[in-house]
Order: sequence, then C-alpha cells, then structure tokens
Amino acid sequence: MRTSIATVSLSGSLTEKLTAASRAGFDGVEIFENDLLASPLTPEEIRARCADLGLTVDLYQPMRDIEAVPEEEFARNLRRARHKFELMRRLGADTVLVCSSVHPLAVDDDALAAEHLSRLADLAQDFGVRVAYEALAWGRNISTYDHAWHVVETAGHPALGTCLDSFHILSRGSDPKGIEDIPGEKIFFLQLADAPLLAMDVLQWSRHYRCFPGQGGFDVAGLVRHVLRTGYDGPLSLEVFNDVFRQAEAGPTAVDAHRSLLVLQERVGLADLPAPVVPTGVAFAELVTPDAEPVAEVLGALAFTRAARHHGKPVDLWQQGEARILVNTGTAVRRGDGTGLAAIGLESPDPAGAARRAEALLAPVLPRRRAERDAPLDAVAAPDGTELFFCATDRPGLPDWRADFEDTGQRAEGTGVTRIDHLALVQPWHHFDEATLFHRGVLGLSAQESVDVADPYGLLRSRAVTGDDGGVRIALSVGAAPADDTVHAQHIALATPDVVAAARRFRAAGGPLLPMPANYYDDLAARFEFADGELETYRELGILYDRDAHGEFRHCYTRTVGRVFFELVQRDGGYRGYGAANAPVRLAAQHAVRRLTGG
Amino acid sequence: MRTSIATVSLSGSLTEKLTAASRAGFDGVEIFENDLLASPLTPEEIRARCADLGLTVDLYQPMRDIEAVPEEEFARNLRRARHKFELMRRLGADTVLVCSSVHPLAVDDDALAAEHLSRLADLAQDFGVRVAYEALAWGRNISTYDHAWHVVETAGHPALGTCLDSFHILSRGSDPKGIEDIPGEKIFFLQLADAPLLAMDVLQWSRHYRCFPGQGGFDVAGLVRHVLRTGYDGPLSLEVFNDVFRQAEAGPTAVDAHRSLLVLQERVGLADLPAPVVPTGVAFAELVTPDAEPVAEVLGALAFTRAARHHGKPVDLWQQGEARILVNTGTAVRRGDGTGLAAIGLESPDPAGAARRAEALLAPVLPRRRAERDAPLDAVAAPDGTELFFCATDRPGLPDWRADFEDTGQRAEGTGVTRIDHLALVQPWHHFDEATLFHRGVLGLSAQESVDVADPYGLLRSRAVTGDDGGVRIALSVGAAPADDTVHAQHIALATPDVVAAARRFRAAGGPLLPMPANYYDDLAARFEFADGELETYRELGILYDRDAHGEFRHCYTRTVGRVFFELVQRDGGYRGYGAANAPVRLAAQHAVRRLTGG
Repeated sequence: MRTSIATVSLSGSLTEKLTAASRAGFDGVEIFENDLLASPLTPEEIRARCADLGLTVDLYQPMRDIEAVPEEEFARNLRRARHKFELMRRLGADTVLVCSSVHPLAVDDDALAAEHLSRLADLAQDFGVRVAYEALAWGRNISTYDHAWHVVETAGHPALGTCLDSFHILSRGSDPKGIEDIPGEKIFFLQLADAPLLAMDVLQWSRHYRCFPGQGGFDVAGLVRHVLRTGYDGPLSLEVFNDVFRQAEAGPTAVDAHRSLLVLQERVGLADLPAPVVPTGVAFAELVTPDAEPVAEVLGALAFTRAARHHGKPVDLWQQGEARILVNTGTAVRRGDGTGLAAIGLESPDPAGAARRAEALLAPVLPRRRAERDAPLDAVAAPDGTELFFCATDRPGLPDWRADFEDTGQRAEGTGVTRIDHLALVQPWHHFDEATLFHRGVLGLSAQESVDVADPYGLLRSRAVTGDDGGVRIALSVGAAPADDTVHAQHIALATPDVVAAARRFRAAGGPLLPMPANYYDDLAARFEFADGELETYRELGILYDRDAHGEFRHCYTRTVGRVFFELVQRDGGYRGYGAANAPVRLAAQHAVRRLTGG
Repeated sequence: MRTSIATVSLSGSLTEKLTAASRAGFDGVEIFENDLLASPLTPEEIRARCADLGLTVDLYQPMRDIEAVPEEEFARNLRRARHKFELMRRLGADTVLVCSSVHPLAVDDDALAAEHLSRLADLAQDFGVRVAYEALAWGRNISTYDHAWHVVETAGHPALGTCLDSFHILSRGSDPKGIEDIPGEKIFFLQLADAPLLAMDVLQWSRHYRCFPGQGGFDVAGLVRHVLRTGYDGPLSLEVFNDVFRQAEAGPTAVDAHRSLLVLQERVGLADLPAPVVPTGVAFAELVTPDAEPVAEVLGALAFTRAARHHGKPVDLWQQGEARILVNTGTAVRRGDGTGLAAIGLESPDPAGAARRAEALLAPVLPRRRAERDAPLDAVAAPDGTELFFCATDRPGLPDWRADFEDTGQRAEGTGVTRIDHLALVQPWHHFDEATLFHRGVLGLSAQESVDVADPYGLLRSRAVTGDDGGVRIALSVGAAPADDTVHAQHIALATPDVVAAARRFRAAGGPLLPMPANYYDDLAARFEFADGELETYRELGILYDRDAHGEFRHCYTRTVGRVFFELVQRDGGYRGYGAANAPVRLAAQHAVRRLTGG
C-alpha cells in the first residue's frame, strides 16, 4: 500500500521535511497547515517540490470547529473553507481533514452536524476536494469513530467520508472491530500513530507522546486489519506529535517512521519482507582504540588470551571460553577519538538472509570490509552507529568469520569467563524509540519493559532487547538530556560461573575493579541474609547483589577505559534482569572515580 | 521556622547536595536512602559533614512496605528496621519516614497496621528514633492523611506519629482542613511539594513533576496554615522529585528551593520580609556589545536618538518617547561575546526597598557600578544572569539614574515609539520554574499561564510575568532542550500607536525588517476580514496580526543583531497577549534568515 507521513511528524522547515520523507521512501505527505503557513514557498512551488521528490500531497490538515456551531459562525467557516479549498487546488491536494468540533458553542445535534458537513462537502466538491471527517478523542460532542461515521452516513454526501486515526480510537479504548461496518470507499483516509500506555489527559498524551507504530503499547496492526477488511485502499499515513521527534534530525526520524510502516505492513500481510533471522549468540564484540595497551592490560587481567590476529589488518582477537573480543587499532576509529565499542558480531543461522532483511528495513548496509583473502561479512549500521556483523562461528556450511585471522599459537587458558552475557549500548538522545524498533523489527529481538535508572545527575532510561533463549542480550540506554550520551559509557558484560573467583583473579593480575561504597553492603545486610563471610567477600571485591523471583545475580565492574568498561556477571537460577536496582550505586561510583581522576 | 530539604530534590553526589543546601541557607536535610548508599562517606562522616555545614539530619527516608503484611514478612521488616535504626544512630538522625505499604500482600486491616507500627515504634524507641507514618497517595490500603492518622491514633504509641506531605494530600484532592484535628505534637514531620495541575497517573506525577511551593498549582500555603494551627513546630521540609532538577546544578536549585520556602513563610505569616515593591515601568534596557555600530544603525533606523552619554563609561543612552536603550561597549560583556540584552532598569517607587527584598530572597546583589560621581544604583542578578536595576526616572525625592549621563544635545525627534512594551528573555533550560518564582516572589510580578510554542526544531515554553498595570511585561521562554538556549534570541518590543507608519519609517531608513511568508497572509485573509488594502500593507511590511476578546495586536520584527532583535508592536483595545499564535511563523522566518546568512 501507499505510505504517507504528516509533515508535523518531522522536524525542520517544510522543505527539510519533504526531502526527508522522500529519501526515506514515503509515497506521499499530509501537509500540516502551520508548516505551509511558515514556508516561504508558494503552494505551487510546494506542489512542484513534492512532484520532484516523488511525493503526492495526500491530505491537507486540519480544518477545525466547522460543524454544529451557530449559523453566523458556520457562515464564517464556509468563507474560510473557500479560501482553503482554493489553496488546496493550488497545492494539488484533494482531501481535507476536518476534525470534530471543540468549539465552546458547538451543540450536541447530529442532524445539524450532518447538515453542516454536507454543506461543506457541497462547497468542497466545486473545488474537486473531498472532506474526511474525523472524531477527535476530545471532541466536544463527537469523540468516537462510530459516532463520526454515523454523522457522515446521515449526511450521505459523495464528497464526505470519514478519516480514521488509530490514536483517537485506541486511546479511548474503543473497540476497532466496528470499523468493519464502514464501507471501505467511505473511509477517505487512515492516520496511524502508536503511543506508550500512559494514564494521562488524552489531549496532552496525543500532542506530546505519540510515536510510530510498534514503538508504543497500542495494537495498531490489529486496527489496520479491521480497516483492510472494509476494502480501504488509500494510504497508510503516519501522524505523530512527539516532543522528541520535533527536535530530532528529520532524516533519521523519517527512516524510523518508514521502517515502522514496513514492519506494520509485514504484520498485516501487506508486505513480503525477507523473514527475520534471529541471532543466536554474540560471536564477538569489537573495540576500536588508538592505543591497544590499556585495553590489552584489562583483557589480560580478565584472563583473556590474544588468540589470533587478522591477516591483513591491525585487529587482535582476544578469547576466553566463547567470549571473543576484537581490538582494532586501525585508523578507522569511527566513534570519536577514544576507546569505544564499535561493532558487534551476531551469530546468525543465515547471515545473508539477516542482511537482506536489514537492508529491506532501511538499515544502512556497510561496505564489506574485505581484502582479497577476506571472508565476506554482511554488516549493517544500527541507529547509534554500532556496526552489526551477521556471521557464523564453527557452523557447517557457512564460512567462519575467523578465516581471516591467524592463530597466535597462544592457547586460551582462562576458564573464568564463558561467554558475553550482554552488551550495553548508549543511544543518542533523540533515537531511543528508534533503537528499540530497529532491534525488534530488523533483528527479531524481543524488547523488555523500559525502566528508569537514577544517575546522580539525572534519570536514565534503559531497555533490554533479547533473543529467544538469552543468547543475545543488549541493554539500550539513553541519558536524561541530549548532551548526556557522552557521559555514560558502554560496556561488555562477561558471564562467569564464579564471580568471586573471577574478580579475585582480575585483581590479583593488577586489574582495577570499581570500588563500591561500604554503605551499600550495610544495606545488603539489612535486606538479605548471607552465609558467613559472604558479604565481607563482596565488600572486599566490590561485588553487587540482586535477586528476583527466578534467581540471583552477582556482578562487579572494571574501571573505565576510554568509553568502555567491563562487567563480570554470575547469573544463577534463571535470574532475568541486569541488576538495575544496583545501577544508581554503580553510576555514583563511576562519577566519583571520574571526579578523582578528572577522566 | 526551621527549613529542611530532602537530598533527592537536588542533583549530584551527597556531598554536593549537602553543600548546596547549606549555602542556600537550609537548616537541615532529609537524607534519602539511595544517596547514603551511594556515598563513599560513612554515616559518621556524613554526620560530621552536616554538622560542619550547620545542617541537622531531620529525617531518614524511607522505609517501605512495613505494615499489614504477613507475619514472616513483618519479621524480616523488623530485622531490616533494626539495621536502619543502628545506621540512624550513627548518622545522628532521630526520625524515620515510613510510607504506607504498597506490598501486594498487604491487607486492609487497620488494627493489624496499627499493631505492626506499634511494634516498629517499640523497636525504634530503643534506638531513640521516632517513626513518622505517611499515607502515600497510591498506598495499597492507606492512601489518605486522615486514614494514616487514624491508624497512628489507634496505635497510641509515643514514638509513633504521622508525617504530612502536601503532594500526597493535595494530589488526591483531599480537604486539608481535617489536619487541624491532629494534635500538633503527633505531626512528626511536614514535607512540602507543589506540582503543576496535570491529569495523569499520580505515581508518575509524583515521581517526575513535583516542584517547589509557588511553582505549581497547589495551595501549599493554605495547607501549611492548617498545619500551623495544630501547633506543629517541626521543620518545613521540601521533598521534590523532578526530572529537571535532577539534572540541574545543585547550587542554583537549592537557592530556588529556599526562596520558595521564604515566600511561603511570608504568605502564612511566619516570615517578615521586606515588602514587595512592584516595578511600575521599564526605565531602560541595556545592551552590551563589542561593536556599537550595528546596534546604532538599527536604533537610528527605528528613529531613536543618541540623547546622552555616561560621563565615565562607554555607555550611550538612546531614547524615543519613554523608551530608553543603553548601549554599553565597555569591556564587561557579561553574556558571551556577541550583542546581548544584559540589564533591565525597572522603574521602582522604592529602589532601596526593592533591593532589600531581593536580597532577603537570595538574589545576588551586584556591586554598585559606581564611580565617584555616579548615582547609587541598586541592582541584583536574575536567575538567567540578567542584571536588574531598581531605579527612578523623574521622580521627586529619588535620585534620577540619568544623573550620570550627559546630554548630547541631540533632541529625540522620533515619535513612532512611545515606550518599551515588553522584554523577552530566554531562560537557561533547567531554570524555567525558578525564573517564574523569582519574578513573582522577588519582583512582585504576576505570572500568566505557560504556553507551548512550536518552533520548527522543537517546542518552546513561554510564560509572561507582568506588573499590575502592564507597565512591566517580561516574556520568559525556554527551549526544548538544554542546548537550545543559544538558538533563540532575546528581544525588546517597542510600543507604537501606528505600527504601519513605524515599520515604513524603519524600512525607509534602511532598517532590515524580518520578511514573513506570503502563505501567512493568505491564511489571515481566510480567518479575518480586513479593510481594503490593509492586508496588502501588512504583507508588504511583514506585519503580523492577532486578535483576542479584548482587542487587536499588530507587530513586526527587525532582523537579529547578535543575540537580540527588536519588535514593533501596536496594541489596540486592551489586547492582552504577545502574539503567541504568530510565534511559529516568526521563528520559522528567523531560522530561514539564519540558514541564508549562516548566522
């Protein structure tokens, strides 16, 4: 189906919005009145610009407070409408959105509303315009889609139909099944928006917190299925008012938006995308660094072994158990100057298929980093710039990504670390919802609930995305403010069956553990009962403790190197979380170290 | 009365919080458990630090989910409580906050709740601790203050009293009058917070949107009056969870917080502050600039005359009607390098009194900029750094601030501008609520409702503060994100009885007017009926139009010089606003100019 987006959903000037919508692959736009008013382009110039960009103008919006008002008010409305219909002719837009009235003098009289809308449609028809009437969730007298349809049906005018908006329908808890009672040709337009499930005033909710389908809590796909059963064949159009998207760069937001519609179309059976290939594990994490020494010291102290080296590039493969960390000192330091987590190798049952899906869902495909002898590696960029490689380790019938590495002859001796437990990535402030949708829609991971974490200098939000079997766990987090994404480091959490032994060995090898405050352990003593000496051991090593309904979690942290630190984690009995309850203490400890070292 | 603040209300490490609270003048603190846990200081060290800073530890908080739970759970709670009471002894805190249970197994049984609390109080008494029991607005079974008091009364234990929290009481719409039925000595603690009136889930409202008294919509003073009638003589303590304050520098937030309590105490008759001296007009606006030429060009084109010059400093006084603008090319460029609005002269019936009040309300008093021959000028700094001078112009019995200026002999000939209509100041992102409280509490201005303004790159918030008679109008605004305060310029709006004539004259003198898009005028034509040619004149000059229930508003803008621009405004028939409906178009036009000029 054709896809469209309301210009109000994107940031910037009208021309920036149009360009972003076109580049992201939309077929059309809804032009929001204020965007047009503020534009230096004439309606004819906007029309030409849209045509050049391959965009149709699917809707002009909105006209407000039209119907069921006193007659002299309605006469003024018709006068205003005539101006707007003339404008729409110049703009090349043939459908106008009319929202149900919130005028203080609007009366609760369906017959009058139908008569007024019918007279408006008469006028519209003269200009070749169709009127799409929509119930605002906070409309004064008409606030449900079935009520709006009843009025449209009563009017019985060929140039009058209804507009359905998933936010207005689902935010009121209306049952969307009744949509199927509307003839498809009378649904003139379909606007889609999702939203987090918030208990708040619906007007504020609508104006500030809408998001793209798949990013909130509404069953938008379910609603679309009902609409499709009516025979509706107009565009799927996004209309999202969101304080964050208003500030974010229009280009990435438009890509995020179009990706949401692709995933939605797949869910309702309208799009035939390459099937998701859920990664089964983490093949490697890759650090880039201008100076391998500090990283090598920490990895050495963690009992990793420099097991192999890339045959053509300055990349070392450090290994312990199934945990593999690449250290890249090549010139392409992609994330600023310091040491950072630049890439993740995702163990994939079908690397090429995974890459095809990612590409179909608008992920930038990276040029394969391949020299003559290199194995092909499929890679895309995540919204935060992290490179994701789809690869195979020791899998029959698939090329092994380690083919490009030559053994150093050093055998991995460490046994404390078995695998990468999870990776924690800091997201750019404006793109947290996009990151979740990306990991869910493109990679096929499942998203957990978002949690607030109190950093001493502001609240963070954090949300884990995981594979079905816990083979892949990625914790996405975002700072309290746009500038914050440099404050908080990414990290690599390493699974160990015995965190005490692993921490002791690390410290004995000269590795710097993050010290934790004594008060934290006094509190643990108040909350839990421990075996003799257990708490003292944790206190000595800076090990944190958490428990959930399934099991226990013990974890500790290394000091930060550049923008990265490591965590040693011991999960027992099926503990499912990430120690979020301990995160405020850990963050405060990291700030304290930073203050001391000026780092 | 003694004043206190919960450490959770401030940003940073515990020591940063304590230092900020002490410097702002608080007598004590509530220590929030997480702040203590994350601190590297021992309880004894924290106690000593507080003593050094002149702070008492008034409350330790919170203990949760204590009462009306299954017996084995309660036994664990007592065990935990013993640890916490030991900690409190080390900390020197004698009152603990216990919030009503939200435990899923808590039963609705007041007798059991009373018994549990009584047993807890028994234990507390052994450690010299008092238990203050508070109803959370979302408590599972006990959620109102009178219910909590009923349980405390039932328990009848000397070490058990109640804690009142204005948020929990007022957010539920409870009538605070019943507080007077509680004996003052059984009110162990009083926590104060205000909040904007939002229709949303009370838990989210409480955790993210609380603010200091006087910054929200609750009648906190009214509640405090009821509490005082009981004979309560404990501290007035602020407990504010606020996402913005969590990020803001602790120092200014603590000052803002303490100022809110001073104003509150004045309102309830507990503090005898110097009375407010409401400014009656704007004596001058002062621009600082490294280069007077561009400013002089604009002022000249606006028909201002360089009427006088400071006898000892490089400051020119430009005048037209009662509008006076100082242009200061001295080295003390206080707001960055460019041209900026640095100071406002407020016409005051009692300059010294105004300064005394400002000082009593913690406004930084500025050193008088005075040479031997200078008239004394009382000045303080507003939260955004703008200097506010309290001064008199042509007022018998008061020194005239113009005494330091020498006439140039050039007579003001312009008659287009009569006075400064309003000043628009951009506030630092974290300090918007503080700015409102400052202008209201310190200057005695009235605050209008806050409005959202759609900038192409994010929503702005704007709020006007005004004197009783419109003599002083200041529009405070804040950007959508922390980095935003440099994007939006401040401006000086000049009143004229004929904006068309003033704009024509400005343009004829070579002054650059901000061009407005043609589409805006097409929309005006759709919305209003104008006399023949009127709209064409507006279109030609870039004049914007608005109307309210009282009258009409016509206004236009100059191009920006540095960080400042000018507005010409014509108010007719008692129009009360600032043309907010036109602000999105104006902002888009300014962004367009900036893109063109790279400015």
